[in-house]
Amino acid sequence: MGIAKGIRLRMGKTSKVYLVIMAGGGGTRFWPWSREKRPKQILPILSDRPMIWETVERVRPFAPAEKIFIVTASFQAKELHRQVPQIPPGNILMEPQGKNTAPCLCLAALHIQQRNSEAIMAVLPADHFIPDRKLFLQTLKGAAEFAAKQNFLVTLGIQPTEPETGYGYIQKGEILGQAAGLQVFRAKAFREKPSRARALHYLHRGDYLWNSGMFVWKVGVFLEALERFLPSLYREMLRFKASLGTPRANLVLKNIYERIQPVSVDYGIMEKAPNVALMQVKFLWNDVGSWAALTQIWPKDEAGNVLPGGKQVTRGKVLVIDSSGCLVRAEEKLIAIIGLKDMIVVESGNAFLVCPKERSQDVRRVLQELNDKGWKEYL
Amino acid sequence: MGIAKGIRLRMGKTSKVYLVIMAGGGGTRFWPWSREKRPKQILPILSDRPMIWETVERVRPFAPAEKIFIVTASFQAKELHRQVPQIPPGNILMEPQGKNTAPCLCLAALHIQQRNSEAIMAVLPADHFIPDRKLFLQTLKGAAEFAAKQNFLVTLGIQPTEPETGYGYIQKGEILGQAAGLQVFRAKAFREKPSRARALHYLHRGDYLWNSGMFVWKVGVFLEALERFLPSLYREMLRFKASLGTPRANLVLKNIYERIQPVSVDYGIMEKAPNVALMQVKFLWNDVGSWAALTQIWPKDEAGNVLPGGKQVTRGKVLVIDSSGCLVRAEEKLIAIIGLKDMIVVESGNAFLVCPKERSQDVRRVLQELNDKGWKEYL
Repeated sequence: MGIAKGIRLRMGKTSKVYLVIMAGGGGTRFWPWSREKRPKQILPILSDRPMIWETVERVRPFAPAEKIFIVTASFQAKELHRQVPQIPPGNILMEPQGKNTAPCLCLAALHIQQRNSEAIMAVLPADHFIPDRKLFLQTLKGAAEFAAKQNFLVTLGIQPTEPETGYGYIQKGEILGQAAGLQVFRAKAFREKPSRARALHYLHRGDYLWNSGMFVWKVGVFLEALERFLPSLYREMLRFKASLGTPRANLVLKNIYERIQPVSVDYGIMEKAPNVALMQVKFLWNDVGSWAALTQIWPKDEAGNVLPGGKQVTRGKVLVIDSSGCLVRAEEKLIAIIGLKDMIVVESGNAFLVCPKERSQDVRRVLQELNDKGWKEYL
Repeated sequence: MGIAKGIRLRMGKTSKVYLVIMAGGGGTRFWPWSREKRPKQILPILSDRPMIWETVERVRPFAPAEKIFIVTASFQAKELHRQVPQIPPGNILMEPQGKNTAPCLCLAALHIQQRNSEAIMAVLPADHFIPDRKLFLQTLKGAAEFAAKQNFLVTLGIQPTEPETGYGYIQKGEILGQAAGLQVFRAKAFREKPSRARALHYLHRGDYLWNSGMFVWKVGVFLEALERFLPSLYREMLRFKASLGTPRANLVLKNIYERIQPVSVDYGIMEKAPNVALMQVKFLWNDVGSWAALTQIWPKDEAGNVLPGGKQVTRGKVLVIDSSGCLVRAEEKLIAIIGLKDMIVVESGNAFLVCPKERSQDVRRVLQELNDKGWKEYL
């Protein structure tokens, strides 16, 4: 497709690289635009195409469609397939329920191992903003080469530019080498989303990178780590492996997912494994994790207001009086604001959200309350 | 009706008192709930009945329906009649266009004069909040008695409780007498809506009252003042007087209204006339002039949020997280707010308004911009 024009990565048809795109996220962060059945990854947030489509096209020069897997929730699979018809239906892997990233990636690894036991597996979230595709692909290629040569679990880290409290952080250890002109360190420590004070501390120390949630490893190295650090999950999933390709596979997986505990790959494996490498990447990146993040991505007017136009145009209208630093998205109605500063005002479907930009992470509390109240029609 | 139960004012059937309710206001202050074709006075703001209905019922013990006139804009008359079917259709007077209050009251005075040249005319806005009906009616009776005995234009003034910038002020002069146990002063000076500093000054001086926009006078005394202080308006309107009762009346009025200048009764007459009396009333009063005013009238929850329930219930829902001092009215959708303080958030029809409480007077600027942009569907 047009996106990849001019990018030549020479991975070749015999490449061992397989991509896994994790698209299991619920529709919480961009509520009310995103909903349970309309998760962020299928929204046209960054262009007039769904984010998942952007993500797939971004990596197409790196791997042919048949080597791209997408893991998603069963109930989202049909809609997802509609959004990325270029991916073979058999490559859309369905989780019976969300159990965080470790089971998700185990499922993907077993599928990939079946195709090629020597495979390099690159893991990407479905919904990130990475405008420099060429640099991104060069980086990914470097990481794949590094992973191919050594038995490391490679994770991509981003140089922090501000004391962001919405990201995890990884501390750099000793240098392990170079790949694609980038330094690769041993990962010394993984830190969950920090307080603001702690985030400032990480930023000033300079030896912490943001955890991008992107990983590259040999499928065998990853499964070994799983066996070692999450043995019960691994044992359960071996039953699924045995069923793969049989009519029982879905039922076996459903049964397993009812029993296993949710666990993230960061907490379950990366924080514990000794062979974790941290590649310090240079491309601009944003996890598009909240409405506030869009105020950094979508264009602003002179007053610093983000009033989606262009590809985001809807039937809705916006009228702004004496306001600055706001993001206002009207889908159907007119939204008039007077005297607002740094506010998020969003209309979508049957709901409206108003909150200060700095509170946009708390949208999840709205979802919790809606759940508690049983107001399902707004979820 | 139930409202007036227990109130006996003994005005009798032969009373000369006629009521004029001014209901010509546009739908600007409560936009987007109020609209051009759905002005404030027909909204169920204070109960499940339109404000105009409340106003009519409030004065029913004081005057029978056939002595109550309502002046409104032609295009609003039909809807208004639907809202107050108890008023005879012939008592709903239609202005061809809005020309402020002096022409409006001249029109009413001529109609009343035709019925009874000795009439006492009491003027009330259509849309005020006056919870103590009994005290209000006693006051009105006192004012009517005062006006009957002397040739004064009596205006009702409210003791200020805060430096309100949304009201006009009237300075008390020498004392003229008493009526219904209330003091009546000569009106010394009329002041337009003041700055905050000036409003504070008026409040501290203690000799300024809020201009309630309620007047009581003999119809003859008022028409004399009109003739003296607004002679050209008066002359024009004499042509209408001559046509009253003929098929030409509406056309004559339309023709006159195309020529006359808009002028308020305060500016055109009250500020200039020597015989203006100011009666200091004691009932609780609010002109319900903005969304912010409703935060003083509608009930609040523990966090000081006004979330219309009871009679104001709609299909809409409201979800509040960490917010205080807000007024949130959802008509159809769910409105979720997080971390807001003293905000007005209103959904109605095809529009949505968000503004700080202290900016709610600026809703008129939204209307201006909508006009300028030609976005008529939101007016």
